[in-house]
Amino acid sequence: MNKLLIVGTVAFDAIETPFGKTDKILGGAATFIGLSASFFNVKSAVVSVVGDDFPDEYLQLLRDRDIDISGIEIVRGGKTFFWSGKYHNDLNSRDTLETQLNVLADFKPVVPAGFADSDVVMLGNLHPEVQSSVLDQMAKRPKLVVLDTMNFWMDCALPQLLEVIKRVDVITINDEEARQLSGEYSLVKAAARIHKMGPKYVVIKKGEHGALLFSGKEVFFAPALPLEEVFDPTGAGDTFAGGFSGFIAQSENVSFGNMKNAIIYGSNLASFCVEQFGTNRMLSLTPEELNARLNEFRALTQFDIALQ
Amino acid sequence: MNKLLIVGTVAFDAIETPFGKTDKILGGAATFIGLSASFFNVKSAVVSVVGDDFPDEYLQLLRDRDIDISGIEIVRGGKTFFWSGKYHNDLNSRDTLETQLNVLADFKPVVPAGFADSDVVMLGNLHPEVQSSVLDQMAKRPKLVVLDTMNFWMDCALPQLLEVIKRVDVITINDEEARQLSGEYSLVKAAARIHKMGPKYVVIKKGEHGALLFSGKEVFFAPALPLEEVFDPTGAGDTFAGGFSGFIAQSENVSFGNMKNAIIYGSNLASFCVEQFGTNRMLSLTPEELNARLNEFRALTQFDIALQ
Repeated sequence: MNKLLIVGTVAFDAIETPFGKTDKILGGAATFIGLSASFFNVKSAVVSVVGDDFPDEYLQLLRDRDIDISGIEIVRGGKTFFWSGKYHNDLNSRDTLETQLNVLADFKPVVPAGFADSDVVMLGNLHPEVQSSVLDQMAKRPKLVVLDTMNFWMDCALPQLLEVIKRVDVITINDEEARQLSGEYSLVKAAARIHKMGPKYVVIKKGEHGALLFSGKEVFFAPALPLEEVFDPTGAGDTFAGGFSGFIAQSENVSFGNMKNAIIYGSNLASFCVEQFGTNRMLSLTPEELNARLNEFRALTQFDIALQ
Repeated sequence: MNKLLIVGTVAFDAIETPFGKTDKILGGAATFIGLSASFFNVKSAVVSVVGDDFPDEYLQLLRDRDIDISGIEIVRGGKTFFWSGKYHNDLNSRDTLETQLNVLADFKPVVPAGFADSDVVMLGNLHPEVQSSVLDQMAKRPKLVVLDTMNFWMDCALPQLLEVIKRVDVITINDEEARQLSGEYSLVKAAARIHKMGPKYVVIKKGEHGALLFSGKEVFFAPALPLEEVFDPTGAGDTFAGGFSGFIAQSENVSFGNMKNAIIYGSNLASFCVEQFGTNRMLSLTPEELNARLNEFRALTQFDIALQ
């Protein structure tokens, strides 16, 4: 079985949407990535850090899905990273109400020995120095390195971010962030500029408007499934990244054609994630539901024009 | 050959974009629809009105494409409808600088006798009473009636708009207008409400984010082709409608599956329209270029996941 190494936050989230609000619940980029990737036939491990306030039952949810959590450091007397946010009525934007870095402030990631030879590395949203440190610890060059990041790091750690971007094969980023990083409004031009920073593949996430995959002159587009109701967008981007990297790790095929499929799998998983608060929907999701919705994605996008 | 009847404005536009500005140039919904539909094997006619300030060379451009213009009334001493607008930097929104209704104010459309039995009627954006009057003049129920409209008529002629919406098979409308018309934010819910107003098919145009086709529980999505540069969005929606209705008229097939193809053809044509000012690109466009880009649409959206 191929190995997938995931780095990212494991955290508490408190979320407010037009439909309700939660107390502290399970969240974090690596959590969503891990849950999403667990739908594929891969051996995965999470590198992260929590405080000793983090309930073992949350860690057990990861163990139950055969995710190796030996790389999740538990800091005695430390407090787990906490994020609180409130979504606007259209759910397309949100305000961060509170960020407590806590144990994340001094986090030095340690890659478990058994995963230093991972086939795929998924660098979830975190300080770019942490992302670089994970790459430094790999015993061999992984077949594929995927990086997710956000505007926060462009604002406050751009040189370090550019360093790690140089070293990855795929970057996943949202449309506004792609514009910020590249200084180009047109996403076609933005992708071309980001290619020059290193990544051969640029995935631009457009939320409810789908996702674009660029590689040189090639481009692929996957829509988001039109949903009656988006309940909570938290973790959708991470779930997308988990589906993308999990599928690639399982299939061992890093061609552009196979990345198209990976984008569809990622979009499919993300379409479930937003149906309930936090990780709830991902925890109840079955392979049968996933497969049924893949058929909806096919019906949504496939046409049969006879070309001349 | 099947007949396509087009109603809409034939007009002067003056456009300002971040890339330049024009004096009065050829514009109008029916102009763009007619030019777009002329790429299909259909017999089409335009019902509209102009003043005697309208250059015959502009009418000749339509005649050259075998568009019947006997339904374009030329009002002696009248002035042609004029619209002037300025696009914002992102080209997703614009301000109307000036609207001179002129001869449009008292327009009573007259359907040419030879087109009262048209197979497809494309009601371009105009006062809903004009759209209704055209339907009243049909000798038989067309196989398909398509209506395009905009928020302006929702604001100032809603009862008349709802009357004509009842009578059409397909409505094409942008996302914000769908929300306004339905009172629903979710486009899935908006489409369901608009279905209840009459149209069996609801096409929601999302500009650079593509277009959705809804019919009951069925949904199809066509992306917009990611372009390096959008030069002038004027007429893109009309060009889309012209491609959609032209293809349906040519193929005589009003199934959901064929409408998917019509949406792709419409999106394909619209992707050219925005490359230059006004109608310029539509006037230079060749069938070979259209076909080549259809292949790009296929590469952009088609994937090959083996479903279980």
